[in-house]
Amino acid sequence: MGLPVAMPKGREAAAPHDLPAPYLLFLGDVTEAGFAKTAFGLRDWAADRCIGEHALPAATVTTGLRRLTPREAAEAGARAMLIGVANQGGVIPPAWMPELIAAIDAGLDLIAGMHTRLSDIAPLREAAERRGTRLHDVRVPPPGLPVATGRRRSGRRLLTVGTDCALGKKYTALAIARGLSARGIDATFRASGQTGIMIAGAGIAMDAVVADFAAGAAELLSPDAAPDHLDVIEGQGSLFHPAYAGVSLALLHGSQPDMVVVCHQPGRDRVLGAPGFAVPPIEAVIEQTIMLGRLTNPDIRCVGISLNTDGLSPQDVERVTAETGERLHLPAADPMRGGPSFERLLDACRG
Amino acid sequence: MGLPVAMPKGREAAAPHDLPAPYLLFLGDVTEAGFAKTAFGLRDWAADRCIGEHALPAATVTTGLRRLTPREAAEAGARAMLIGVANQGGVIPPAWMPELIAAIDAGLDLIAGMHTRLSDIAPLREAAERRGTRLHDVRVPPPGLPVATGRRRSGRRLLTVGTDCALGKKYTALAIARGLSARGIDATFRASGQTGIMIAGAGIAMDAVVADFAAGAAELLSPDAAPDHLDVIEGQGSLFHPAYAGVSLALLHGSQPDMVVVCHQPGRDRVLGAPGFAVPPIEAVIEQTIMLGRLTNPDIRCVGISLNTDGLSPQDVERVTAETGERLHLPAADPMRGGPSFERLLDACRG
Repeated sequence: MGLPVAMPKGREAAAPHDLPAPYLLFLGDVTEAGFAKTAFGLRDWAADRCIGEHALPAATVTTGLRRLTPREAAEAGARAMLIGVANQGGVIPPAWMPELIAAIDAGLDLIAGMHTRLSDIAPLREAAERRGTRLHDVRVPPPGLPVATGRRRSGRRLLTVGTDCALGKKYTALAIARGLSARGIDATFRASGQTGIMIAGAGIAMDAVVADFAAGAAELLSPDAAPDHLDVIEGQGSLFHPAYAGVSLALLHGSQPDMVVVCHQPGRDRVLGAPGFAVPPIEAVIEQTIMLGRLTNPDIRCVGISLNTDGLSPQDVERVTAETGERLHLPAADPMRGGPSFERLLDACRG
Repeated sequence: MGLPVAMPKGREAAAPHDLPAPYLLFLGDVTEAGFAKTAFGLRDWAADRCIGEHALPAATVTTGLRRLTPREAAEAGARAMLIGVANQGGVIPPAWMPELIAAIDAGLDLIAGMHTRLSDIAPLREAAERRGTRLHDVRVPPPGLPVATGRRRSGRRLLTVGTDCALGKKYTALAIARGLSARGIDATFRASGQTGIMIAGAGIAMDAVVADFAAGAAELLSPDAAPDHLDVIEGQGSLFHPAYAGVSLALLHGSQPDMVVVCHQPGRDRVLGAPGFAVPPIEAVIEQTIMLGRLTNPDIRCVGISLNTDGLSPQDVERVTAETGERLHLPAADPMRGGPSFERLLDACRG
């Protein structure tokens, strides 16, 4: 801190991850769908990057994609096997190892987003070196990240922010990017977390960046672009979360968004992981985001609200969506449900 | 992000650095006083931790402390040689190596705060292993940092914040802690940057912590304490700096201060390292700090202003100090100059 540029001289600013596709999704021995969220996310949002799935005999969860061995997948054009399951503790169980080695031997790269790094596991590292394939730890930030400059970049940007963590900022950004692209608008999803990176095939895991370079990483994530190009940036954390607000602020400042969409889950009233903290009202998140975001983009504005209505009845969805939109005078919709309300949200996101 | 606790299970929360003293200050071959700021800071603020200085023949800068070889220092009770100079590029010049090895051979630990890690330099690592001494890289955060919980801790806390980087937050905190201690108040300086850590002998370099754990590191830095104990915490960055605001916010949230002192340098109008950004008015820093700090401590308040009047004439110091205090209805002083205005600031910091 205190030095304008705190990296050793001579290091080049790095490019975000660039993952080889298509992927073979590895499901391990998963028996609970909740642990396979990554695989489902890839199936739903990056179908063109997924060639099939591979699981141990003990697995009972499936993505519905065709089942291929690593060798069959490689012959069908796969370039990597991606670990699409989380397990408790974030480590690689011994039972997975033969399958991971088999994938490497078939010429596939491995991709993972766990706390345990693939490259820290000697047998995998040695197998990959021997076979000439690569291990991609998407949580690991690229080397040589720059300190942020605050320089305004060309092109347009939209950032999803939230009233809390883990309530739909990634899927909202994906749905907006997909919806606008379908309308012929030049929009790119920019991933700031590990699942998003796997879906997009590129990005930076903001939560793993050293604090001094967090805003710099965010600047790198949405580079200069054509004037009418729109980057739709996946948000992280919440400005009201006692653990993660710093990450959210660095991402806000580095993203310098022209537009934000606030994501909220009706009915959630306590902050995830910090139950002594109330989830703030959407109004407070709008106000604080605009106030803080003005530092790097004085034109920042909130263009809509994304509601995570998972588990609500259709009547309740309609009611809460209408009420929220009327109260805030902004388009509100659950992007996962689509429909006319989401089309109005997309109208607003065109900028 | 999104997981309440994002560290592998079974890892213990770490203690901040705990450095062995007294130190022999190593000045290398420094010929410009500006590069020896660390050594001067240690002489001025941690005299009881400094036993002498050691320099190469080419050096022309001195701290005025007695000159000792590493062996003489070890015999006089030194426990470590501390690299008290920065050099361009943040690397260890070859000319320093024989002296560093000599210090290890004399049984001294080495302490440094450069980007280059001592422990990454094979000859030093091997010498230290052979001799049984340790290498302390104070920029390296302790392992196993926790995610912040936001839980209120016992004891009282004061945080120095700034209108910009590098304008006196560390020395303000040191002066307040020293001044209150001299009055018999139970106050502890808590270091959040490398020079502060060397002075205090403990602390965490906030700028080097991975973003997700930054607020957690700040919580660890000022642990539960007796009800009337005061931690005086060294601030970092600025909420208005486009690169570092995230670090500042994480430190604010994790510190949960009861009191803040805003540090400002009259006449500085452009943000350090980001000349496109104006230094904000003190009023804006007070307002934003209080608003954001309320998340983890609803009782946060600003108790005074610290002015860095370096280079001003005595008349200008008096004028700007009086004007600032009157305008803000708060005690204002330059802690480096002491005097009645600083005594009034100390009165306010008792809480």
